[in-house]
Amino acid sequence: MLTLYYAPGTCALASHLALEITGAPYEAVRLDFKLQQQRSPEYLRVNPRGRVPALVTDRGVLTETPALLQYIAQSFPAAQLAPLDDAFLLAKANEFNSYLCSTVHVNHAHKGRGYRWVEPDDTAAIEAMKKKVPQTMAESFAQIEEGMLQGPWVLGERFSTSDLYLYTLTRWLEGDSVDVNRFPRVADHMRRMEARPQVQKVVALHS
Amino acid sequence: MLTLYYAPGTCALASHLALEITGAPYEAVRLDFKLQQQRSPEYLRVNPRGRVPALVTDRGVLTETPALLQYIAQSFPAAQLAPLDDAFLLAKANEFNSYLCSTVHVNHAHKGRGYRWVEPDDTAAIEAMKKKVPQTMAESFAQIEEGMLQGPWVLGERFSTSDLYLYTLTRWLEGDSVDVNRFPRVADHMRRMEARPQVQKVVALHS
Repeated sequence: MLTLYYAPGTCALASHLALEITGAPYEAVRLDFKLQQQRSPEYLRVNPRGRVPALVTDRGVLTETPALLQYIAQSFPAAQLAPLDDAFLLAKANEFNSYLCSTVHVNHAHKGRGYRWVEPDDTAAIEAMKKKVPQTMAESFAQIEEGMLQGPWVLGERFSTSDLYLYTLTRWLEGDSVDVNRFPRVADHMRRMEARPQVQKVVALHS
Repeated sequence: MLTLYYAPGTCALASHLALEITGAPYEAVRLDFKLQQQRSPEYLRVNPRGRVPALVTDRGVLTETPALLQYIAQSFPAAQLAPLDDAFLLAKANEFNSYLCSTVHVNHAHKGRGYRWVEPDDTAAIEAMKKKVPQTMAESFAQIEEGMLQGPWVLGERFSTSDLYLYTLTRWLEGDSVDVNRFPRVADHMRRMEARPQVQKVVALHS
């Protein structure tokens, strides 16, 4: 049995979708960030960095979305969520996932977590960061629209973990004041993801 | 034949080390960031995002350090640079590499590339970001020292891509005004990496 710790509105949705779609045996534990449950002594024993997602396995805890996505795909290969037999295509999936975690997620984080990178009482700098988020998110999604998303899925014909992760971050655009319809291929990707009953089921738990 | 594009002082060192250590057939092409060669029309055809590393393969271009590291390890498995046969241990390597790219590298980037996240003429905000880098880098390396680096190597007894990547980012500490000796296990890791002739050979190309 795997245990996923998640919170609504976070990138943990991608791993939650991967568990559901692969048919992995798992339970999901919801944390309330408003109550700072990710900073509780209990949770810091699970993940000392106080973030989600964290996946408890019988060999220990795993964190970081790209690592969880490949781990789930590799542990439940029947669902074919990653091209494990093709080093180049697997690298394309990992390239995409790495771009999302190190560039797109980071752009988004400057809206609500600017205090990480400047003094928390420097309201001018924190506002300056917040103000640029619509631009940086739009620039990142232009990269995705104009090349990285091969279509119909991220890797082309092959559905993969990258689709779960892209969908998760596409959902942030509205709150970041970016109209997803500026990116027709991304918008179409989102609609096709939301047509899937498994996606609907998990998303309902994240609201 | 693989072609790696790199620039001195960047995280491309990790992939360069992986190519050298695995014995992969490769050539390395050095870009001069001071001349903005990463923004030249020629290079933007290689990597539209204008960053290094980029690895040209016979099937296309790959970017993003974590993706390159696993690709090189998987393509040249005799060097055993990744625990490909063990999904959990491979996920621990990917967790570590993902933490480096999405948290530690991002902390470091706030020193010289703050213009990414605020208006480039907002010198006050850019200075505020720069000022916090020694603190955020020290906090990240405390996480590494106190748990993530199992010792003697990142994954314990098994040498992996995570060691190449950790070494690459450890080299940034001095320029970020963090004394590596505050983290004895990291400092010891760096010394053991630098004792390796292959590391010395590649590092010389990055100076």
